[in-house]
Parts: sequence; structure tokens; C-alpha cells
Amino acid sequence: MQRTPGTTVPASLERDRRGAPECQRTCRLVVENRQMTVYVVGTTLSANPSRSAPPGAKFFSVKCTDNVQYTLNPPPQETSHLAPIPLRGNSVLLISMSRASQSENDSKISVQYYGNNKEVLGKAVLHLTAVEISLDVDADRDGVVEKNNPNKSSWKWGPTGHGAILLVNCDSEQTYVKKLDSEQDYVSKASDLQDMSPMVLRTKGPAKLPKGYKLTMHMSQGDAESVRVFRTKSPDVNSSMAEKVLSKYFLRDYPLVLSREVLSQEVPYLGGEAEMRFYVEGLRFPDKDFNGLISINLSLLEPVNEGLPETPIFTDKVVFRVAPWIMTPNTLKPVEVFVCSTSDNYQFLKGMRNLVGMSGYKLKICHEYENRGDRWMQDELEFGYIDSPHHGFPVVLDSPRDGDLMDFPYNDLLGPDFGYVTRTAQRKDVSSLDSFGNLEVSPPVTVRGKHYPLGRIIIGVAFPTATKGRNMTKVVQEFLWAQKVQEPIALFSDWLIVGHVDEFMSFVPAPDRKGFRLLLASPDAAYKLFRGLQRDGHGKAKLFDGLNDVQQITVNELLEDEQFQSENDYVQNCIDWNRDVLKRELGLDDEDIIDLPILFKLEEDKQVHRAVAFYPDMVNMIVLGKNLGIPKPFGPRVNGRCALEAEMCSLMEGLGLSCTFIDDFASYHKLLGEVHCGSNVRREPFAFKWWNLEM
Amino acid sequence: MQRTPGTTVPASLERDRRGAPECQRTCRLVVENRQMTVYVVGTTLSANPSRSAPPGAKFFSVKCTDNVQYTLNPPPQETSHLAPIPLRGNSVLLISMSRASQSENDSKISVQYYGNNKEVLGKAVLHLTAVEISLDVDADRDGVVEKNNPNKSSWKWGPTGHGAILLVNCDSEQTYVKKLDSEQDYVSKASDLQDMSPMVLRTKGPAKLPKGYKLTMHMSQGDAESVRVFRTKSPDVNSSMAEKVLSKYFLRDYPLVLSREVLSQEVPYLGGEAEMRFYVEGLRFPDKDFNGLISINLSLLEPVNEGLPETPIFTDKVVFRVAPWIMTPNTLKPVEVFVCSTSDNYQFLKGMRNLVGMSGYKLKICHEYENRGDRWMQDELEFGYIDSPHHGFPVVLDSPRDGDLMDFPYNDLLGPDFGYVTRTAQRKDVSSLDSFGNLEVSPPVTVRGKHYPLGRIIIGVAFPTATKGRNMTKVVQEFLWAQKVQEPIALFSDWLIVGHVDEFMSFVPAPDRKGFRLLLASPDAAYKLFRGLQRDGHGKAKLFDGLNDVQQITVNELLEDEQFQSENDYVQNCIDWNRDVLKRELGLDDEDIIDLPILFKLEEDKQVHRAVAFYPDMVNMIVLGKNLGIPKPFGPRVNGRCALEAEMCSLMEGLGLSCTFIDDFASYHKLLGEVHCGSNVRREPFAFKWWNLEM
Repeated sequence: MQRTPGTTVPASLERDRRGAPECQRTCRLVVENRQMTVYVVGTTLSANPSRSAPPGAKFFSVKCTDNVQYTLNPPPQETSHLAPIPLRGNSVLLISMSRASQSENDSKISVQYYGNNKEVLGKAVLHLTAVEISLDVDADRDGVVEKNNPNKSSWKWGPTGHGAILLVNCDSEQTYVKKLDSEQDYVSKASDLQDMSPMVLRTKGPAKLPKGYKLTMHMSQGDAESVRVFRTKSPDVNSSMAEKVLSKYFLRDYPLVLSREVLSQEVPYLGGEAEMRFYVEGLRFPDKDFNGLISINLSLLEPVNEGLPETPIFTDKVVFRVAPWIMTPNTLKPVEVFVCSTSDNYQFLKGMRNLVGMSGYKLKICHEYENRGDRWMQDELEFGYIDSPHHGFPVVLDSPRDGDLMDFPYNDLLGPDFGYVTRTAQRKDVSSLDSFGNLEVSPPVTVRGKHYPLGRIIIGVAFPTATKGRNMTKVVQEFLWAQKVQEPIALFSDWLIVGHVDEFMSFVPAPDRKGFRLLLASPDAAYKLFRGLQRDGHGKAKLFDGLNDVQQITVNELLEDEQFQSENDYVQNCIDWNRDVLKRELGLDDEDIIDLPILFKLEEDKQVHRAVAFYPDMVNMIVLGKNLGIPKPFGPRVNGRCALEAEMCSLMEGLGLSCTFIDDFASYHKLLGEVHCGSNVRREPFAFKWWNLEM
Repeated sequence: MQRTPGTTVPASLERDRRGAPECQRTCRLVVENRQMTVYVVGTTLSANPSRSAPPGAKFFSVKCTDNVQYTLNPPPQETSHLAPIPLRGNSVLLISMSRASQSENDSKISVQYYGNNKEVLGKAVLHLTAVEISLDVDADRDGVVEKNNPNKSSWKWGPTGHGAILLVNCDSEQTYVKKLDSEQDYVSKASDLQDMSPMVLRTKGPAKLPKGYKLTMHMSQGDAESVRVFRTKSPDVNSSMAEKVLSKYFLRDYPLVLSREVLSQEVPYLGGEAEMRFYVEGLRFPDKDFNGLISINLSLLEPVNEGLPETPIFTDKVVFRVAPWIMTPNTLKPVEVFVCSTSDNYQFLKGMRNLVGMSGYKLKICHEYENRGDRWMQDELEFGYIDSPHHGFPVVLDSPRDGDLMDFPYNDLLGPDFGYVTRTAQRKDVSSLDSFGNLEVSPPVTVRGKHYPLGRIIIGVAFPTATKGRNMTKVVQEFLWAQKVQEPIALFSDWLIVGHVDEFMSFVPAPDRKGFRLLLASPDAAYKLFRGLQRDGHGKAKLFDGLNDVQQITVNELLEDEQFQSENDYVQNCIDWNRDVLKRELGLDDEDIIDLPILFKLEEDKQVHRAVAFYPDMVNMIVLGKNLGIPKPFGPRVNGRCALEAEMCSLMEGLGLSCTFIDDFASYHKLLGEVHCGSNVRREPFAFKWWNLEM
């Protein structure tokens, strides 16, 4: 929270703001006493000649060397600067210099004081050394650190915005003994520098600063929780004591400058025209208590006597925003598909292998020794990414679910340029709604004029009106909302036993309209289909035909069951409630939504009735470009073909999508999940850059 | 963090938004099965006729009672609504009603289905009961709860802004056994209602809602930390079970509706045209983790079967912002002056009594049995206030300093319409910089076009570049920044032993320019004055003349002491650094600043040299309108008059200010404080209303 009162922005020579009060520094003129100071090009020194005037002084005159300019404010009545000027209480001398000094104290300005009769009463001389100082970042977001961007000390969203960007260094350069790079306070490999934001200190001036002056980099205690700064070793081997002490690992090459432990540290002044390179490392993602913005300051300190703190006489500030974690919707191109291999899912794996191979993507299998029988690849983790103008990489969000798959994200995914983030919660606060089948993201949408070019995150919770109910845990919700660029939508999913939004909704790409369709499970659509079958004489066709261990049921029987109908009416109401929210929050029309014929049944779960899919839940699909991997529904056969598959194909065909039905009945459906629950897809990032969002 | 996905804003009849997707609710048509629902005026029901059409249905027709309107979207090709309309997949019926029902199910809409040959295949009937529901607040900030303000569900700053305002109920209606009203979850006195924001639930409809429908008020878990809702008891004595249980104290009259423990509760539907009054109580001030905004929701729930959660079918939302705590600068009119009486401060008290009496304000004395010898009335507390369109009152901020005066703010100030707030920190984190002599506020300023009509808070800290140093504790800084309306400025005050900004700066009213002057202590001004005295032959005049126990010193001796001069050069540099910050952050010119002749000396304090005023620190004054109470400086006498007093008077005279010098030497100055440190002033609030700020 500590602010930097001394912050000034040095004007570039093109944008001369030297007269502006924000660049002024008060300095003193002392009669008969050699004064000296260091001047920073782009600022103004303000000296009040009457403040230290000798007693009886009525007039003064000013002289200076070539490199020094001055004006009087307010300007004197006289037209000639050579004639002594009357002293007036609050009139100040504004002093500036247009270029860096070649040597220490190579410039000066002097003020001579005169009495009533123009007799000389004394003279104050101020010796000056001019330096140029600029702490620079990539504030224009083109991947290159430009020189003294006038906007570098603030951050603005949008294509006409500005402000540098920082990545959380959440990958691990080490492949074996892993550790998040952000958890170690040294640079372990040169490749790690790529994950950090470059920052350059540009200085110009004499070979060295006058005695006692020094440069210090500093940040606030709050910001130090979120960022660390390294630098390249200075060419001067004798540079600083701290540097010598920290000599293990690669610290020799990249000394740590700022961290949680060190909020302020001297950095060497290199002399002449020089650039020193720094690397800024993000340590944590935006969250409820962190808006993502951090500042780094570089100050020039003026020496004072022993035992007194040095005075900052110039401060340059740069601002970074930590890149948010971004999710990838079904409409983005897949890169890799992940599934688990278990002792009983050979059939499913075979189906997935065919689908993924046919689609031309990589299939990655998590083997049983690692998944320990936990097949719910969707639920343990969510793939996303972080991005900046200089670099980006995928980042897995590890769920607090922590099933037997819990080690997979860290052990198998984390690595060089593959990041990892998690939020941990107390066991008692974690419910089934914390599995990431309950965390999805829409394709890009525009809602009543507001653009969401990265889509919107979708989670499922209990009704806000419910006096009890399950929820996604607070820490994960807060993390998701804090990322800001995919403003979340909360749906009602607590009506399901498992409680995941992916049990009733999915998105598929479409060539027309908004570029996608929302698919919703619909008992009404299922009843309509089955009534049509009955009418057309297929009432005796059986669901679950050919499956073992499952009670088969005819279309007629199904349609006669009033209790079952009433349960599905309830389910349709729940889904319709979500449909209204999705229409409103994603700006969808009814034409953007496709109802899929799916039935549910209610079961008592801890004295509450909750729903689960009656036959394989076709909406719980995997979307790989134009190929859909859909749970094989085992619906009634009509003329040798499953009527549910036929309906599904007919609904998807118009969008140019191809349906592959995968048998997940025994190994997933009976365990209350389907294809989507049992798989995960890492996708390419959006082409749209998050910092171009208008917020 | 839990959002309200079901939130819709009912359109007022003047602003018809019924067609807009945000007001649509999907409802089902079921053939041969009596359906009923409750409709909320201002919304739209959306029903898809083809979804539940009987098999073979190709056409449909629609009929409805008088009070019901419908349209088809997209509109049918046919021109007559009487002829059966072809069924099309995604075409929906948009149903609305323009006024509330007189009785349950008094309206209906029916859809008849036809086959290929227009033969009737079935009919779906939907019975409707229309109600008007509006949760209302004072969103236009005129002190009156208007009806269904279209902006009630958002909050916007500024004179053209909108959004209701909430006070933290931080006063105590009880005068004896005190407790903050916000700390008890019942209404102890009717007068307490005045500290809460009124909220009205307006309903219109039949005498009762159809069976199972009910109204529920709810808020999120996060918001429940900051707010509580009471209501007036409903006229219906049999209303709710909860109401009966909570019958102690005044709960009978004002039952608690929402609190940290109860996030959702049914509220009675009164029937006919009715208003139910609620009282919303703020529980905490904006802070680092609370932006001050909270929402309260009112939902209509539709019944479902036993064991299933009721579905919210309509939600109205209102938003409040908690009023910030606001400080009052020296330029506001005083109300009361507070000082301590101690065994040794008779002289000082006498001076203060005269000054305050002469100025026409109330002097309140904190007696020794209460102050236990702690005389630093400025340091233990800061007076401020909170304000809303309906009510406002003073609020004391109690410092974590917690000296022997620590009980005074709670015991003596807290009371009816006098609020109390504090921030507690660990003993080890509290330093002298946490005393509120280190917390001041500027008069209103405009800085490079940005208006601060309530001024800016000023605190003192260590240099941001310092590797060690004292600071104001984090919890207090976070509190101050979170109030937002007086954006704080951090000065450098750690150079002083005591470390308070009031040791080197003050504001006084002025008839010209910005309406005030900034007064700064200035060793340069003091040296200039003393050199003038020396030149004029007063070098032998003595400082501290007539005082016991103090080493007297002549002007000559003072001017000869080079060490002393060098210490004061350092002090001038420190003050000049702050001068530059104040010029920049308050938009001041040199003409807005007056340098007061004050000298300091350095003393070693825990191996660091820090400064303290050499003679009574005249800038540490009390400002009561045009009367200034200034520490009597005991400067050198010239022609019988203290030269420092004369200079001070001459500087203030031009502003129409009158100086009263108060002898605080023995009882304050020698203990490292002065008049300002030993007093406190409660002032009138700003005429400017904080919600009119442009943020």
C-alpha cells in the first residue's frame, strides 16, 4: 500500500513537460557555500533566490554555463537579464539542462545578490551534473522494450491502450526434480529468462556519479508479494557487495535485485551511455486481493550525512499487469487429447483412439499406475494459457477436487513452458461442484453491445435463493472472477447428483450465425422423439438393447411412466432456467440453441432428490474441430439404426459436424460420467490478445 | 462471490423492455395437462409451441384471455392469426400481461395443435396469474424511495449518477452500556432505523399467490459480511414461523430478514396492492477486500415437488454503496474543540479556553481520571463523518496507537448519532507514525484538471527507497485508501523523531487563490529572519528568554553553530522534498505556500538521527476559522516583542487571520509535541456530497 510520493515521469525531449509541476524539484541556493547537485534531464530544478538571500539584499542577477537554461517565474518586469532583478518573495528560478554531462560538476549556475545601491552582498553557486535516466519496459506491447514511453507508468486496456505485461513464472525449467520457477529466487537456466518481462535501465552521463549519489530500484511491500526482479550482472566485477555474497547457482550471472525480502536495492550506475537489462518475474495470478497491477521504481538518491537516510531526488516508475489465466472453448483448435487408461475401459479407449487419430490430433494416455483408477480426466484439471507480447505458454489449473488423479497435473503436465496453478481449499469446503466438468467457457460472444472476444467462463452452483446447497469453493470462484477477461456466469447445476454443467450443456462450432451452437440436454426433445417413434409403430423398440446388466425398457413403457415424466418435467425446468441465463448472459437467440433428446432420472442423494442421465448423456461430448465424440446412447433401434444416434446426426449434420459414438456405458456412464468427463483437450490459444480487450 | 444468475430488471411500464432477452423466461406448454404459472408484469414468457407438440402436429393456433398478449417470433408468414400457423422448430410464442391479476389463475393462453389436414391433435393450456413486484430503494439519492427506478440495480458516481447509499451503523443508540449498533442483530430502538437505508417491496396482485409460490429475499455470502436487513412486521400475525421464534427485544416489531447467518429468507406476500418496508444496515466500511458495493435480491419462487429446490422465476435486484468515512480539513467550520486536562497543563488550558471561547466554539475537556496523563488528543483519534441522502453523523476513527487515552473515543464519543470505527494492529506493527498527528487532510483542490472537492488525505511514511524505516501500519493505510473519496498522499515524515506530518505542515483558510494556504516549517526562513536580526544589531537577543530550565541562546550564538546549520539544511531538504510532493499532488503553486521560520535539531534515536523542533513549532497550530492557536515560540525579543511572533503575525495578517500564541512550552513542547498535537477539532461536514464525485 505504500505509494511512491516521489514518482515523476521524465519527459522525453519530444514531449517537453519540464515546466510542469510534476517534474519540478525544489533545490537550495546557499550564499558563500559551494552547493552541488545532480540534475536529471527532463526535470526542472526550482530555486527561490530570496529564500537564502543575505540580509539587506534587494536585487539579484543570474549567470550560468552553456549547458544550463533558466527562466524566472513569474518573469521579471525588466527586459534585460543582465541588469540586477528585484528580489520578490515567491518568485522562483526554474533551471534545466538539455543534455547529459560529460564529467562531474561540469556545469553551474550562480546567483549574485545586491543591496539597495546595487552593491554586491554575496553569491550563491550551484554546481550541476546532468544525467539521463530512464527505466524502460515494453509499454506499447510489441515485444520490444522501447525508450522512455510517456505512458510507461500507467496501464490501459484496449487496442489503443498501453502498459507492460508480466507472466506468472509458473512453469518449471527443470524436468526431473520439479519446482515452479516462481518458487525459487534464482534463475536456474537461461531459458527461464524468456518467461520474465524484460526491463531496461538506460543511463547517460559522466563516467561516474558525484560521490555518494546512487541509483536504487524499489517497490512496495504489497507488490513484492507478486513480483521479483533479476538483472544481468554488471560488467564491473567490483560492483556491489550483495552481488558477491549471492554467488551460488546462476546467481552470478543474474543477481536478484528485488524480492519479498529486499524491497529496495542499489543498482550500479554504469557511466557514459549505458543500458542495464533486468528481468521481471510474476509470482502470482490476479486474485480477490490482487488486481494484477504492480509498479517498479528507480530512484536517484542524493547523499546526506552519516546516519541520515539518502534523499530520492528523482524517481522513474513503470507499471506491469500480470497476465490472466485464460480458458479455451470447444471452438478453438485442439492440440492434445488426454484420457485415462484403466483396467476396464478398453472399449472406450479404442473409440477415443480412433476418433482422435482420425481427427489428426495427439492422444495422451494417463496410465493406471498414475491415475490409480481415477478416470475423470475432465474433473481434475482445466487447460488454459497465459500470454504476453514477448512470450506465452499453456497453464493447467489444478482442481481442489484432488481425486486419485491429483498428482497428474503437477507430475506430468508441469514442465518447461507448461505452467501450473492451483487453489487449495479445506477438504470440508470441497464438493463435487469443484470438479472441472463444472467449469467451462463459451466461444466469443457479444452481449447487448458488449464484446467478450475470449468468451465467458461458465460454472455451476446452487440457486442463490437456496438456503442450502452445494457450491464451487470460494477460492476457485474468486480466482476465476479475478482473471476478469472471461467474466464468469454462474449457472444452476446443483440439481444434478454430480452437479456439473457439462452434464446438460456443450458448445459446438458452426459455420453460420455466431460461429457456434449451444447444445442443451432436453427431456422435452426426448419425449417428443419417443412419442413420434410410438406413433410410427416403434413403441416396442427397446432402449439399452444388447447391453448386459441393464434393465431394458421399451418406448411404450417409458412413455407410460408418469413418475418418470414428472421427474423429466422438473429436469426440463432446471435446464430451461439455465437456458434463460445463457441466452441473457451470452446474448443468444433461440436459433443459437439446439435441444438434444436426453432423459434424466432422479435419485435420492442425502435426503435431496437429484438428477442423473437415464441413458448415455450425448451432450457430454468431446469436440475436436468438426468431429464430435459422443457417448453412444443405446437408444431404441428403428430399421436397424439407433433412433437417438440418428436424431443426433441429423441435428449436427446441418452444421457440417460429424458424429462418432463411443461406447462409454460400462466404464463411464454407469459411474455417472461420460465421454467429456473422461477426457480433456488442450487447445491452441485465442488469436485475440487479451490486453486488447476494452474493459 | 456467488452471483445472481437469475437477476432480471422488470421494466417499468414507461420503459417497455419486455421483448428484451434479459426479461424473458422460458416456460413449457404441455398437451392435455393443465399447466399454470405466475407471471411478473414487465417480463416475457417464452414458449416454444413445437417443443411439446404431439406427434404429427404440423399447425397450431393460439387463443388467450383479455389480459394476455402474445406475439410469435419470428412472426408467421400468414396475415391472420385465426388460421392455423405452420409449426417451425425454433419459433417461439412471447407472452406478456399488462396488469396484475385480480384473482389466482384469472388468465390463460392455449395452443391447439393440428395435423396435416388441420385435424385437431391436442391442446395445451397455460393458466396465468400476473403480479407486479418491485424491490425499491432511493436510487436517485433524494432521500425518498421511488418506485422501480430503472437504474436501481447498478451504481454510478457523479451528479448524473445513480444508486442507493448505505451507512455503516457504527453509532450506539445506547448511552450507558454501549455497543456499536452494527454489533447487535436486532433493532434496539426505533431511532436506530434512521441509521439504516429504507427499502420497499411493492407488490400488486391477487389476495394470495397460487399454492406453493413465495417471495424470498437473498444476498450472497460475501455481501452478508457487510450488511443486514430488517423489515417491519407484516400486518398478518400468522406470517412466518421464523418471525415467531425471534420474539425477544424489539424483534417483534422489526424481524431480522438477512444476516451473516441467514442468506435467504421468505418474506410475506401481502396481497392486493401492498408495500412492505425494509431497513438495510451497513456493517463495515469499504476496505482492501471490500469495494463498498452490495446487492440485495428479491425472488419469486415457483414450487416443485417435495425434496426439490424451488425455482426462482423472477429476481429483482438493488445495489447499495456503503458510505465512506470522510475527514474534515482545517478550512471547515469547527463544532467542538477537545483537549486534555493534566496535572501540569494549566497554562496551556487557560490559553486554549480563551482562544476557543473567543472564537465562539465549544471546548470539551477530557479529564485526568480518563486521560491518565496522556495529553495527545490529536494522536489518539481522528474526527470524520459519514453521509447519505437520508441521514449522516460524525464518526471517530480510533487510532491503533492506543495510549492511555485509548478508551476516550469509545467511552466518551461513541453514542447516538456519533459513530466509531477503528483498525487494530499487532503491538509490534504499531509505531509513532500511527498517531493521527500523522493523518491530515487538505482542503478541496484541483490537480491537473482532476477535482478533489473533499480534499486529499495526507499521511507520513518512510522514503519508499529506504531499506528500513517506520511506516503507518498497513491496516490503517488500507482503510484510508479504500474510502476512495479523499485519495491519500504519502509524505516523508520518518525524518522526525515523532514522525508526524503536523510537525512541518498545516493548512489555513485564505480569502483568495485556492481558498487556503499551505504552511510549511522552514529552517531557511528562520535563518533568514535571524540573519536579518543580527544585521540589524539584535544579535545578542536571546531565545527562550524568561523560561526556566532551558538553556538560553543568543541569535549570534545560534548563527555561529555550523553543526546546527548543517542539521537544519538537512531538515530543509526533507521539507522541500515534501513541498515538491504537495505541489504536485495538490496542484499548488509557490504562491500557495507560506514558509514559517522554524528550526529543528537532530537527536540520536536508536542509532538514527532524527529531528525535533528546536523552539515551539509554530506550524503545529490549531485552526478555528480565522483564529489560529499557535505555540508561543519564545523567540528573541526585539523592541519588547518576540521577533518570531511578529513574523508569524505579519505572514498571517494578509490572509485576515488572527494569531493567538499559547504557551505550551513546559507541558507539550518539552514532551515533543505542541498545540495541534494536544488538541482535536470536530468540524462540520462538507456541503459537497461525496456521491457527486466524478470517479
